[in-house]
Amino acid sequence: MSYEVKSLNEECGIFGIWGHPDAARVTYFGLHSLQHRGQEGAGIVSNNDGKLNGYRGLGLLSEVFKENRTLTSLSGNSAIGHVRYATAGNGSVDNIQPFLFKFYDGACGLAHNGNLTNAKSLRKELEQDGAIFHSNSDTEILMHLIRRSKQSTFIEQLKESLQTIKGGFAYLLMTETAMIATLDPNAFRPLSIGQMKNGAYVIASETCALEVIGAAFVRDVGPGEVIIIDDTGYKIERYTQDTQYAICSMEYIYFARPDSNIAGVNVHTARKNMGKRLAKEAPIEADMVVGVPNSSLSAASGYAEASGIPYEMGLVKNQYIARTFIQPTQELREQGVRMKLSAVRGVVEGKRVIMVDDSIVRGTTSRRIVQLLKDAGAKEVHVRIASPPLRFPCFYGIDIQTRKELIAANHSVAEIEQLIKADSLCFLSEQGLIDAIGLNYEAPYSGLCMAYFNGDYPTPFYDYEEKYQATLKDKINFATIN
Amino acid sequence: MSYEVKSLNEECGIFGIWGHPDAARVTYFGLHSLQHRGQEGAGIVSNNDGKLNGYRGLGLLSEVFKENRTLTSLSGNSAIGHVRYATAGNGSVDNIQPFLFKFYDGACGLAHNGNLTNAKSLRKELEQDGAIFHSNSDTEILMHLIRRSKQSTFIEQLKESLQTIKGGFAYLLMTETAMIATLDPNAFRPLSIGQMKNGAYVIASETCALEVIGAAFVRDVGPGEVIIIDDTGYKIERYTQDTQYAICSMEYIYFARPDSNIAGVNVHTARKNMGKRLAKEAPIEADMVVGVPNSSLSAASGYAEASGIPYEMGLVKNQYIARTFIQPTQELREQGVRMKLSAVRGVVEGKRVIMVDDSIVRGTTSRRIVQLLKDAGAKEVHVRIASPPLRFPCFYGIDIQTRKELIAANHSVAEIEQLIKADSLCFLSEQGLIDAIGLNYEAPYSGLCMAYFNGDYPTPFYDYEEKYQATLKDKINFATIN
Amino acid sequence: MSYEVKSLNEECGIFGIWGHPDAARVTYFGLHSLQHRGQEGAGIVSNNDGKLNGYRGLGLLSEVFKENRTLTSLSGNSAIGHVRYATAGNGSVDNIQPFLFKFYDGACGLAHNGNLTNAKSLRKELEQDGAIFHSNSDTEILMHLIRRSKQSTFIEQLKESLQTIKGGFAYLLMTETAMIATLDPNAFRPLSIGQMKNGAYVIASETCALEVIGAAFVRDVGPGEVIIIDDTGYKIERYTQDTQYAICSMEYIYFARPDSNIAGVNVHTARKNMGKRLAKEAPIEADMVVGVPNSSLSAASGYAEASGIPYEMGLVKNQYIARTFIQPTQELREQGVRMKLSAVRGVVEGKRVIMVDDSIVRGTTSRRIVQLLKDAGAKEVHVRIASPPLRFPCFYGIDIQTRKELIAANHSVAEIEQLIKADSLCFLSEQGLIDAIGLNYEAPYSGLCMAYFNGDYPTPFYDYEEKYQATLKDKINFATIN
Amino acid sequence: MSYEVKSLNEECGIFGIWGHPDAARVTYFGLHSLQHRGQEGAGIVSNNDGKLNGYRGLGLLSEVFKENRTLTSLSGNSAIGHVRYATAGNGSVDNIQPFLFKFYDGACGLAHNGNLTNAKSLRKELEQDGAIFHSNSDTEILMHLIRRSKQSTFIEQLKESLQTIKGGFAYLLMTETAMIATLDPNAFRPLSIGQMKNGAYVIASETCALEVIGAAFVRDVGPGEVIIIDDTGYKIERYTQDTQYAICSMEYIYFARPDSNIAGVNVHTARKNMGKRLAKEAPIEADMVVGVPNSSLSAASGYAEASGIPYEMGLVKNQYIARTFIQPTQELREQGVRMKLSAVRGVVEGKRVIMVDDSIVRGTTSRRIVQLLKDAGAKEVHVRIASPPLRFPCFYGIDIQTRKELIAANHSVAEIEQLIKADSLCFLSEQGLIDAIGLNYEAPYSGLCMAYFNGDYPTPFYDYEEKYQATLKDKINFATIN
Repeated sequence: MSYEVKSLNEECGIFGIWGHPDAARVTYFGLHSLQHRGQEGAGIVSNNDGKLNGYRGLGLLSEVFKENRTLTSLSGNSAIGHVRYATAGNGSVDNIQPFLFKFYDGACGLAHNGNLTNAKSLRKELEQDGAIFHSNSDTEILMHLIRRSKQSTFIEQLKESLQTIKGGFAYLLMTETAMIATLDPNAFRPLSIGQMKNGAYVIASETCALEVIGAAFVRDVGPGEVIIIDDTGYKIERYTQDTQYAICSMEYIYFARPDSNIAGVNVHTARKNMGKRLAKEAPIEADMVVGVPNSSLSAASGYAEASGIPYEMGLVKNQYIARTFIQPTQELREQGVRMKLSAVRGVVEGKRVIMVDDSIVRGTTSRRIVQLLKDAGAKEVHVRIASPPLRFPCFYGIDIQTRKELIAANHSVAEIEQLIKADSLCFLSEQGLIDAIGLNYEAPYSGLCMAYFNGDYPTPFYDYEEKYQATLKDKINFATIN
Repeated sequence: MSYEVKSLNEECGIFGIWGHPDAARVTYFGLHSLQHRGQEGAGIVSNNDGKLNGYRGLGLLSEVFKENRTLTSLSGNSAIGHVRYATAGNGSVDNIQPFLFKFYDGACGLAHNGNLTNAKSLRKELEQDGAIFHSNSDTEILMHLIRRSKQSTFIEQLKESLQTIKGGFAYLLMTETAMIATLDPNAFRPLSIGQMKNGAYVIASETCALEVIGAAFVRDVGPGEVIIIDDTGYKIERYTQDTQYAICSMEYIYFARPDSNIAGVNVHTARKNMGKRLAKEAPIEADMVVGVPNSSLSAASGYAEASGIPYEMGLVKNQYIARTFIQPTQELREQGVRMKLSAVRGVVEGKRVIMVDDSIVRGTTSRRIVQLLKDAGAKEVHVRIASPPLRFPCFYGIDIQTRKELIAANHSVAEIEQLIKADSLCFLSEQGLIDAIGLNYEAPYSGLCMAYFNGDYPTPFYDYEEKYQATLKDKINFATIN
Repeated sequence: MSYEVKSLNEECGIFGIWGHPDAARVTYFGLHSLQHRGQEGAGIVSNNDGKLNGYRGLGLLSEVFKENRTLTSLSGNSAIGHVRYATAGNGSVDNIQPFLFKFYDGACGLAHNGNLTNAKSLRKELEQDGAIFHSNSDTEILMHLIRRSKQSTFIEQLKESLQTIKGGFAYLLMTETAMIATLDPNAFRPLSIGQMKNGAYVIASETCALEVIGAAFVRDVGPGEVIIIDDTGYKIERYTQDTQYAICSMEYIYFARPDSNIAGVNVHTARKNMGKRLAKEAPIEADMVVGVPNSSLSAASGYAEASGIPYEMGLVKNQYIARTFIQPTQELREQGVRMKLSAVRGVVEGKRVIMVDDSIVRGTTSRRIVQLLKDAGAKEVHVRIASPPLRFPCFYGIDIQTRKELIAANHSVAEIEQLIKADSLCFLSEQGLIDAIGLNYEAPYSGLCMAYFNGDYPTPFYDYEEKYQATLKDKINFATIN
Repeated sequence: MSYEVKSLNEECGIFGIWGHPDAARVTYFGLHSLQHRGQEGAGIVSNNDGKLNGYRGLGLLSEVFKENRTLTSLSGNSAIGHVRYATAGNGSVDNIQPFLFKFYDGACGLAHNGNLTNAKSLRKELEQDGAIFHSNSDTEILMHLIRRSKQSTFIEQLKESLQTIKGGFAYLLMTETAMIATLDPNAFRPLSIGQMKNGAYVIASETCALEVIGAAFVRDVGPGEVIIIDDTGYKIERYTQDTQYAICSMEYIYFARPDSNIAGVNVHTARKNMGKRLAKEAPIEADMVVGVPNSSLSAASGYAEASGIPYEMGLVKNQYIARTFIQPTQELREQGVRMKLSAVRGVVEGKRVIMVDDSIVRGTTSRRIVQLLKDAGAKEVHVRIASPPLRFPCFYGIDIQTRKELIAANHSVAEIEQLIKADSLCFLSEQGLIDAIGLNYEAPYSGLCMAYFNGDYPTPFYDYEEKYQATLKDKINFATIN
């Protein structure tokens, strides 16, 4: 994600509305508040009395929908939209969602957040039977399954298809007569229902999108549920009873916006609690607490509050970082030219600094920030990470599919401390994280997927079994992280 | 400034470097850290062994210098650059700086931050004598004065010209053989000298630009000084002895980046001190302190620290706000659709909130944020402003030239409290502001210009006398602020 | 076609090359010479040792491939490309070709010029069997048929599929191991094989593309043929023996570039012959012959040569007409403001003018040009059309699918003469056209499809039967053509 | 001119209108018809009841005025506009006209076509007196002279200033109360007055602009005249009596649009006459006459008509050549890849071709076209040039200021014939050119400047004396023209 210093990527945000005269425009504003979940591309499909129209493109939402008239052309009382996360290289508009399928007997829009674990085998089976795919994404699979289902209604075809699909997913569909939302059996990805003052129902990846459009929160979508919204209101059905809550804990730690609530827990508050707990688990004498902007400010303020050490703005992020920005040359970088993040000399000079960050992936960013603070005169830099060490891959929607890029999969905390040149380094404990979030679900998962921390995956691996076994053997030496 | 909720505008940022093989590129990175001072346009003039080349354009720095080759074409060991602030309507590239003047006997680049108070009469005199101006800006005047001066050297011509000019200004000039920086006799605008590791001297509007390029702080430019930088090093001369320090206090309150130091005082620290002092001057019982992002976060954390009330993220700013963003229609706005700022329901619901902001201009933004917080369930909203009421116009470089747009010029604090629908409202005192910044200069100004607060202007009005007298009589009723 | 005054549209141009180190770039230049066949979009699929990559976009070739690096990224020794014609409204990149299909067991690029007559029923059948289409175009059908074929090799699957498809088509396919070109059983659309000096084989819609890349002409693709080009050279197979030549006569009259040869006949020469024949069939006393630029200049010079009347430039076309051009308002148009075409007063004033055009579609353009000439002082304007009256729709690839827009389907020549306000009007006879082109094929079609002139269609209508019967009953009064 | 194969450049086109409610839009369409005179940039200044507004930019008119709203914002009943010719490198918008000067006591727009011969000395004098120039162009000089004139009225100031200026120029000025056009004492550049049906007066570089907007021709502007157009009509004054006609003959030969009349002579007709005369002066037995598109088609048809040899389309120009076009690599060029111009094999193969071109500058283009024709199978290529050899520089507005780039300045006709590999080569005689144009002016110049052919300049060289003397000594061997 080019707008952040972190190299963790979320896979997409979705938003939909049924029953508003300006549906596409509301979708635009809803998506705008989900832009942090994906910057590679965006799209909207609208439903105008059964006629579906779509527009999608590469880039930020504001780049794709530059012209008011594009939104205006997406007329109709209902719409679904999607923002897609940035991957390297595959810059084709073919993969931008929502997909819009047109058939002789109907039409359907489809948007997806998540990652399927049996996509490869399903795709191969379908192709062997004559199916043609038009994108790299897993998303199309669902539509092929639906079109080949022998069930008599669309909803039954959908349910049958969902039973075939494995992994983490939140789907949003727009048919000619209804908007449908559904979630995987573990509720890996967040998905909520809201309602606008005019009665229109809204579906969104995060509750911040409800706030932004002035909608009231109705309820979260539960694992295995199928929400059907049409002119008669909303209905809740299920495609499976075999469900449990295993919400992606990285949503709380890093991905979600601090103003969102997930499963009733406010993200900022959860992060602040992580910081407070971290202060208790890993205290240190220092002059100030500094958060790495923007995602770690809540945790940092929690650490400060709990420790009684002043919370200071020791790091500043340039708010004008653009994707098209010219990068410093290697020579200039060596001379100290930097763009995104600055340490505040006037604040940290001569001081002992507790630097709070939400997580460590490769370690390079942490090392760079420690260096920034020391270059600006910090006497000591104690790094405190408001989550446990990331040690395992994820196959449910976060873009870490190998342990090679995880410093903690390959090194002990003591080694990492040395590698990033911190004066001390501590991570939050797993139990600390669970308590800080404070969900009321039972073991084994307490409502949270923490597989990247402890390797305890809530589902089989399916097509990823081999990849998982291979990455377990990866042994990388980060001694020379760059 | 379209990227902020505030309607206060700074007039520009300047940056220059002498003696670096990649001068234009360093200037680009320096300017990038000054982008908050101006988003309307940007430009760079480079000096390649006496040959001056320039490039400028409308938009953000990253839009103007989209292509690496544009920077590459600005070859040479020295360069000056400029970012210009956003005004409505006058979108002509003619006004974008640095200006580059080419004469039969030489060339000169010119960049300016500030506002002249006798520009109109000087311009008329010059035009009556045959001068032709090519921009609306005051900046050209200096060059006409220089070219008409009978002094024998460029420096003497410059000094003579500067004695003619009144108001607030920081000028940066690039001749074929030197880079020259100069400041008005009151040092209204900040300007600092730095030095890179390779020995290159740097001039910048704020010290954050020095940090960003890895340069060490050397000294601030003082009032009435002329700094001449060439291959022999830097020299300090003066064009007047009649100087005093009256630094624009709004630089500390709102404009400058928190990681900059002005006159040796860190801006974040000054703001935090304003918040601490405000907590003492205007305490209130409440559940949390919330800052208006981004400029008020330092003051809010100071208030929280001094009051012992938790500092919370009750407001979130969307970091993807772009200039080209489609705005909500009036209908959608009435339905609660908003884009830039969200209140965090999960944090503020049912709570008594102290909302800290840096200043109030028209009052509309404050009222809107109070409303946001109440809509999100805040039980009480107590507004605390970390500066005194803005009541007078500024003619030295801030874009408030009439009292009509200042709610505090027209209403008492009690009236404003009602107008913005706050449960209580308090401003920082003038002395509180002075103490919080803590400069060591003597009365009457203690080093600060606070004319917009108290009407005590450090210079005569010159061409603005009439405008000032007129606006004193302005009497606006903000009862229906919109 | 927005670049021409005519409202006739061709359906696309295709180009492919096998065996050149810079295949994508050669394809770019080949397509560039076919740009007149389609301006809505363009694309290229390259084959790099079996790995297929594609890029496509909306707009002119030069807009789609603005950056050299886009071409460079399409590495490989083989490539196929496509330019698509401009339709109103359907501005989706999804329809831009070549399509690139990726399967678990291979990949295939596909480009198409023409129109299928049984696309609708084939599509419905396929969808009922679970197929999902991703574009509006007929082109995808071929790929679905191939993937569902039970034949054992790709070539046999292709042949079986082609037997199912009806209408006019030239297909170009790129598999991992071969480039394949094929033509419908009537050879409605032109398609030629060439060879570059390095031995690379080339396929192109028109021979002008061969000239432009320095390739020698090898042979035309014949009806029902399948040309298979791979590293061993080229092979000719057939999917049907039931073939005849019925080349679209509008290719000679209007679509093709004058420097192309179709079936061995040079297009400029054919047009000049049409003009010569027209001079004999419809002589008139006059001072000069004027062609409507650009497509009628050859015919006009033929008319002049045969009649002995001087050929003059009485009409000038502005060569800077761009798609984005701002149009005159209705008021300005009424005041005589015009942009694309000017009559040359200095040439035509007081003169009797023979205005030669290639065809008349709606009649509005003819009327406008007659008016232009009269406004510029022409004493008489005698209109001579170098083809017979257009009276019937086409379903093989020209965008006239209803008689409503054809003035000659609704009015006699005498009526049209009055409607366009010409002093006289004559069309070329059908036999005159056949003789002017001079192909050596037998009756009934003499090698040419002239269905739009005489309603004699070389194939059944299939899905268009109903539409055809309906349009036969259309009766429009063009009395008030606008 | 990037849209043409020729490397000759015209210096600009101007257009103005007084008294039309949609003045800026009419100016846009007028300028559009003058686009061939300059493609680097364009601009319009409008006059709305004395308030002048301007807009200008780099690129084609359609690129600069992409948005209807830009034209709409240029409200007012009067406007002047300018298109600027393309030079390499100096891509600054600062040089794009019309210039718009704003003074405390008024405003003035200024557009210029031509080149001053004493610009350098005037500029130096003015700068020594304190003047500051903002562009590289000579155009500003006039405004500085006007502003420094002590005459009492604007018209008298203008006249006095014009007496100081030397060279070739057509100026168009817009003051708050009048539009003024003026021409140099030799009438080097064309300039005409027209009138729209609503009575609005129009000024344009060529009469084609009058046709395009539906205006009637009133009269040409004569040498030394000052045309003053305001709400009372138009007045003709003079700033000098020392005038003669020496119209740039290259306007007839190459620059002007064929539908324009200059001094009452139609350009197409003049060119056709050049071709006819050339046929008489330089006959040759051949199978066809081929013109180099687009500028030589008139001359070629004249040659054909006079010689009785058929006129054929042996060369085709791609009408989709865009500025942004990717160029063939050197390798591809060597393999025969070409983009702009194609020879028509089907026409020229085995034939003896007379290739008619309007002029030869460097010779490279001629050699390339001869080669194209031979590659396409032409048996013989006889080159006939419809103007005399270009041997001397021009300082009045054509961009040839050195003899180095002129093959005929350095080689005999026989040598050129060999260098371009023609089977024969002939140029039109000087007297042939004069007769073909057929103006009724007296010797020595017969109304025409032919200095580039014969070195007979109608004025002294002023600042160019040295440059002229130097280039006389230039001796270049074009033996290896590339």
